[in-house]
Amino acid sequence: MKALVYQGANTKQWTQVPDPVIRDNSDAIIQVDATTICGSDLHILKGDVPAVTPGRILGHEAVGTVTEIGTAVSSLKVGDRIVASCISGCGRCAYCRQGRYGQCLGGGGWILGHRIDGVQAEYARIPFADMSTYPLPAGISDEDALLVADILPTAYEVGVRNGHVEPGDTVVIVGAGPVGLAALLTARLYSPSNIIVVDMAVNRLQIAKELGAHTITTPDVDVHELVNAATGGLGADVVMEAVGSPVTFELCTTLVRAGGRVANIGVHGKPAVLHLEDLWIRDVTLTTGLVDTTTIPTLLRLLATGQLDVHHMVTHRMGLADVVEAYDIFARAADTGALKVVLTR
Amino acid sequence: MKALVYQGANTKQWTQVPDPVIRDNSDAIIQVDATTICGSDLHILKGDVPAVTPGRILGHEAVGTVTEIGTAVSSLKVGDRIVASCISGCGRCAYCRQGRYGQCLGGGGWILGHRIDGVQAEYARIPFADMSTYPLPAGISDEDALLVADILPTAYEVGVRNGHVEPGDTVVIVGAGPVGLAALLTARLYSPSNIIVVDMAVNRLQIAKELGAHTITTPDVDVHELVNAATGGLGADVVMEAVGSPVTFELCTTLVRAGGRVANIGVHGKPAVLHLEDLWIRDVTLTTGLVDTTTIPTLLRLLATGQLDVHHMVTHRMGLADVVEAYDIFARAADTGALKVVLTR
Amino acid sequence: MKALVYQGANTKQWTQVPDPVIRDNSDAIIQVDATTICGSDLHILKGDVPAVTPGRILGHEAVGTVTEIGTAVSSLKVGDRIVASCISGCGRCAYCRQGRYGQCLGGGGWILGHRIDGVQAEYARIPFADMSTYPLPAGISDEDALLVADILPTAYEVGVRNGHVEPGDTVVIVGAGPVGLAALLTARLYSPSNIIVVDMAVNRLQIAKELGAHTITTPDVDVHELVNAATGGLGADVVMEAVGSPVTFELCTTLVRAGGRVANIGVHGKPAVLHLEDLWIRDVTLTTGLVDTTTIPTLLRLLATGQLDVHHMVTHRMGLADVVEAYDIFARAADTGALKVVLTR
Amino acid sequence: MKALVYQGANTKQWTQVPDPVIRDNSDAIIQVDATTICGSDLHILKGDVPAVTPGRILGHEAVGTVTEIGTAVSSLKVGDRIVASCISGCGRCAYCRQGRYGQCLGGGGWILGHRIDGVQAEYARIPFADMSTYPLPAGISDEDALLVADILPTAYEVGVRNGHVEPGDTVVIVGAGPVGLAALLTARLYSPSNIIVVDMAVNRLQIAKELGAHTITTPDVDVHELVNAATGGLGADVVMEAVGSPVTFELCTTLVRAGGRVANIGVHGKPAVLHLEDLWIRDVTLTTGLVDTTTIPTLLRLLATGQLDVHHMVTHRMGLADVVEAYDIFARAADTGALKVVLTR
Repeated sequence: MKALVYQGANTKQWTQVPDPVIRDNSDAIIQVDATTICGSDLHILKGDVPAVTPGRILGHEAVGTVTEIGTAVSSLKVGDRIVASCISGCGRCAYCRQGRYGQCLGGGGWILGHRIDGVQAEYARIPFADMSTYPLPAGISDEDALLVADILPTAYEVGVRNGHVEPGDTVVIVGAGPVGLAALLTARLYSPSNIIVVDMAVNRLQIAKELGAHTITTPDVDVHELVNAATGGLGADVVMEAVGSPVTFELCTTLVRAGGRVANIGVHGKPAVLHLEDLWIRDVTLTTGLVDTTTIPTLLRLLATGQLDVHHMVTHRMGLADVVEAYDIFARAADTGALKVVLTR
Repeated sequence: MKALVYQGANTKQWTQVPDPVIRDNSDAIIQVDATTICGSDLHILKGDVPAVTPGRILGHEAVGTVTEIGTAVSSLKVGDRIVASCISGCGRCAYCRQGRYGQCLGGGGWILGHRIDGVQAEYARIPFADMSTYPLPAGISDEDALLVADILPTAYEVGVRNGHVEPGDTVVIVGAGPVGLAALLTARLYSPSNIIVVDMAVNRLQIAKELGAHTITTPDVDVHELVNAATGGLGADVVMEAVGSPVTFELCTTLVRAGGRVANIGVHGKPAVLHLEDLWIRDVTLTTGLVDTTTIPTLLRLLATGQLDVHHMVTHRMGLADVVEAYDIFARAADTGALKVVLTR
Repeated sequence: MKALVYQGANTKQWTQVPDPVIRDNSDAIIQVDATTICGSDLHILKGDVPAVTPGRILGHEAVGTVTEIGTAVSSLKVGDRIVASCISGCGRCAYCRQGRYGQCLGGGGWILGHRIDGVQAEYARIPFADMSTYPLPAGISDEDALLVADILPTAYEVGVRNGHVEPGDTVVIVGAGPVGLAALLTARLYSPSNIIVVDMAVNRLQIAKELGAHTITTPDVDVHELVNAATGGLGADVVMEAVGSPVTFELCTTLVRAGGRVANIGVHGKPAVLHLEDLWIRDVTLTTGLVDTTTIPTLLRLLATGQLDVHHMVTHRMGLADVVEAYDIFARAADTGALKVVLTR
Repeated sequence: MKALVYQGANTKQWTQVPDPVIRDNSDAIIQVDATTICGSDLHILKGDVPAVTPGRILGHEAVGTVTEIGTAVSSLKVGDRIVASCISGCGRCAYCRQGRYGQCLGGGGWILGHRIDGVQAEYARIPFADMSTYPLPAGISDEDALLVADILPTAYEVGVRNGHVEPGDTVVIVGAGPVGLAALLTARLYSPSNIIVVDMAVNRLQIAKELGAHTITTPDVDVHELVNAATGGLGADVVMEAVGSPVTFELCTTLVRAGGRVANIGVHGKPAVLHLEDLWIRDVTLTTGLVDTTTIPTLLRLLATGQLDVHHMVTHRMGLADVVEAYDIFARAADTGALKVVLTR
């Protein structure tokens, strides 16, 4: 088959590789019907993720069709249409038993396109297939389903639910890239009264507006003044960091009200300064998290009922063989306006 | 009356001042029967707390007897024996209505010995007296009751409850000063299986041991190795910071397991480094907080039943007029072994 | 002034009575600008509420203007436009400190139009005025504000929040009277995927449909089959009882899924049968509750932003002097289609 | 091998049967090293549990040694010493993913000695072995471990944790049989201030006293008066039903304070009357539940550290071949004083 293979920093190739095979009896093999590119794939390509070694097939978001199952797989059969979670869970360790699949101690966690071969390929091996795939109902498109593999549950679990968004809240989302926009969409499920989105890219802010943001702003405006004006000087109930840089994280910690919550969603490569001399007295809760994808069934239902409308999230659609070009479009998002680039069989 | 008056950085005097009077109809005046000194009083004396101006009477922990009440006070009468919370709450603002008296928007919060005159005096004015004092049952001593004015609820609310200590947990407490020891005592109410206390002072560690710590250690030992050995390499379920320095806070964030909690109790004067490059993926919750003292009634009950035994917490007992000497003893804790110095009428 | 006075079972009169006066220094007197009738007023009139004795002015829902305040009232001034909560809270007892004003031990709870004179009058005395009134922003109408005095927070707190409605849930509401419809409106704040409303009155079901119910049904249809079809045979995540009869309560307990919640909102006069022989093994949580009205500020914000649209809830508008006729219309709801009848000055 | 076989109502026999064999690749076979008898076994023997058909081997609590594993079992190996949970969980269904193994939709739940052959036998087949067994550390005895198979987690999860016992609480436990006593032991992990145990059997009350009950009483005393005296007339914070009869359940609902919780642990065969005419206004939460045994690892740790001391719980120790006599002793508990009867190889 063909697959996108990492060949060392800044090098990748859509090339012929051996077909995947069942290795453990809990594996399934899927034909990849749709896949996409994540910001972390760009990190890997820069050579910033040492666990990814040359020869690795990239990608951790897929919708596919089961072509083969291991002998221990009980809930799937050949021909099933599924979404593969970006997170694999053994289902048996102490973390998996709490639904913390992202912290799996039994060989799971984020492994696809990271510690093992991924899904930017014609076929892929999915470990712990019973735990890590979800059957797709007929009425849901590959494209919509693809967004529940990673980005929607990441925003919903790590941002909205860790942040405990409640009806009437003022919510600030710093970062209007794909995950920030997904946080906006899923925050709205809890009816906050005021969602303020901060980003440097005006076109992304415009999409945030279309997706229901009440206020949009670039960071060169005084965001504190804006949040204070909206909250009687108290600060935001919930602030989500969806960028992954020290400066945006520190901004978040200054926008939150006493008793409020800062939910970090961004992937960070550097430490941030935590102003404990201000925060120690303010009853603030900060959370971090890797997605567990436990909310995939709920998100699929919300997509099926039309309660989540994600059509603004996909900006480009291409064939799987065009994956190299797709990376280029995705990497140059400031120019291309790319959010999610969907690659289909 | 006589009171301890702050007279600018590093200067204080036990001196004659006018008796306190009712200013608002929700005030009460109390005769101070017992008071004590807090670490934050030392901060103030260093000149580090600009809100405290020369002429201010210090102190925010008191047990006393009501001598006068304002016309709006309904639940107290002259002669009542009460503990005065270190935190005043208007009872009416949005924060007070949630029990977050520490964040009171109506003129309360930490004001005693800070924004208004405090309780290291023969008499004191207690604002919002209905909300901010608690009647004492006959069976409880002034000394025990004094510890619920600040230190016990601080440790319990900001450390143990924010940290969600649970039966069977491994808990690390960094800092074995009075608040760290109070965290140890109140953590035990939830039956953790392993409490590890870290401090540089061997005599304080010894007291921690007597108060029920399972493991004690100085930080020159490899604390990570110790915690890893106790937790199969996972890290602690709950870590509490009870020092208030960047280095101890950073230590805490490296000792917590994925999915665990770091509860900051310490008062910080400087920022800390938050290693988001490690933490973003580890599902960690960090909390900060000022005490609300909502748990005073529960703590009084636990003292009354003997479920909390705080007799190790009081190392020195003196007369109120000896308050200047008491500060000296408290400030030189490394030499004197002082934890709480109780001053009585 | 004139007021509606209860004169024993089945008798009431709009008649001249003395103007209310300040009795406690925490009281306020308000001019009643708008009031309405509650189902519990009908219970009282039947003579079913022994605490209500002849001579009592009825009514516990009001929007008004402050005309006088007691000396202990600090957050109101004459001329303020406020909504008076149906629940009074002393603010100081153990329950009030937890926001459980409905269970106030200090003389509050449901007292208006019950243990003391109420608000179906030209003027009214409001005890604990700081705690039990909420200032109204300019943009919100008397009519909208009136609904937060009782019915909206009752549905939201006792139904939706006790029931823990979550995005994607299947929710059943048994009873489409005013409180059932308010439960529907406020449940939607949490984005359930399927709200099924059960009532005998087809016109009320029609309104439920307009307010966003996904499915409406009379109880002569097999409701179990309907719920099972919607949930793969599991049952509903949340079931709310909004009638107050044994038969509807028992229906609710058979519609809930294992691990689900039954939130009782209805006012009951008789015991129900609890089928523990079926329920003991099903991990069910049942809750009851009197409203605390702690959510009034949130509900006012949601009304102000248009996130809650309650215009279907008010079916009749009349003058205050027409209150006797209004009772008649409200009591004959099956004929008149009455939901809330608003009486204005 | 030999096993205890149900042969229809009131008939059972310790008799020769075929050895168990692996049927599904997730099964394990264990040699039973210790087992015991549960109240539900007596229900079955009365013929009250139709799912149990003649020929079924009884019993659902076992400590054993793995003798064979299916090809899909990954976390066990032959020779491992394990405790088998009374609850089997497929690990993959929506309920198991939430840790609600008791409600498993994938073929698990309470099946041992109920829908499939149980563990009162020399050997037993354990389905879903990875999910439903727990390895035993060396320091823990078979007898102690046996109590975590059912009774300790039942009391802890369904009683103490559903009831949200907190430090300082007043807790009433109605029923001092094995599960009530286990509720007492595990409630103490949360440091309630007053545990009141109600039972008709004076010898069981005596054991409750030894296990730490603060107050013991027979129901012919006025329990309400006793609870009111202990709580200033408010009622208990938490009440647990550990009998399984209508009258005791109804008693529980009258002992709870407003805002309190009633946690049902008892197995009920008949409906109870729920006095909604009193309860609707009292903010009460009632819970029911089948154990999930998710707390087994925590309970094993607490046993290993000596924080749980269960030696009073085992009153009789016999050989496995004496199981018929053991049933007799257990069934005549009023005469024999039996709590748990441990049968060992």
